[in-house]
Amino acid sequence: MKAKIIITPKKAVLDPQGKVVENTLIHMGYQGVTGVHVGKYVEIDLAPGTDRETAKATLNEAAHKFLSNPVIEDYRLEIE
Amino acid sequence: MKAKIIITPKKAVLDPQGKVVENTLIHMGYQGVTGVHVGKYVEIDLAPGTDRETAKATLNEAAHKFLSNPVIEDYRLEIE
Repeated sequence: MKAKIIITPKKAVLDPQGKVVENTLIHMGYQGVTGVHVGKYVEIDLAPGTDRETAKATLNEAAHKFLSNPVIEDYRLEIE
Repeated sequence: MKAKIIITPKKAVLDPQGKVVENTLIHMGYQGVTGVHVGKYVEIDLAPGTDRETAKATLNEAAHKFLSNPVIEDYRLEIE
């Protein structure tokens, strides 16, 4: 079982890294880009037979407490 | 239309950030974790009507050339 946490800057927050990637793509001659957001990706391998609900609760807590900065970042947790 | 690029360290490469997250989860009392990988996440907004194949080719090139370090990282491109 795997859990994935994707952490992205909130839309209202300046994302200089995203801006750099966007400009570079445009300089490469690719005009189709309207915006780029750069975030973090955390993949967590869970032991087989792990309880889904417990995993969800713990990982939500972890994402909120130390993986993301809730003031400037949003996160999305997926368990599969 | 959106493209997502997920960049993760190769399995054989040391991932100290992942190790820290893993240890922290275990110290939080959560035992179900068998491994953690930390990577980068890049979300690219594409103009409506962008050609899918052109976008794929350009973004693959970008991911290979400057978003990832192909020696130590793998990437995955998804267009949706």
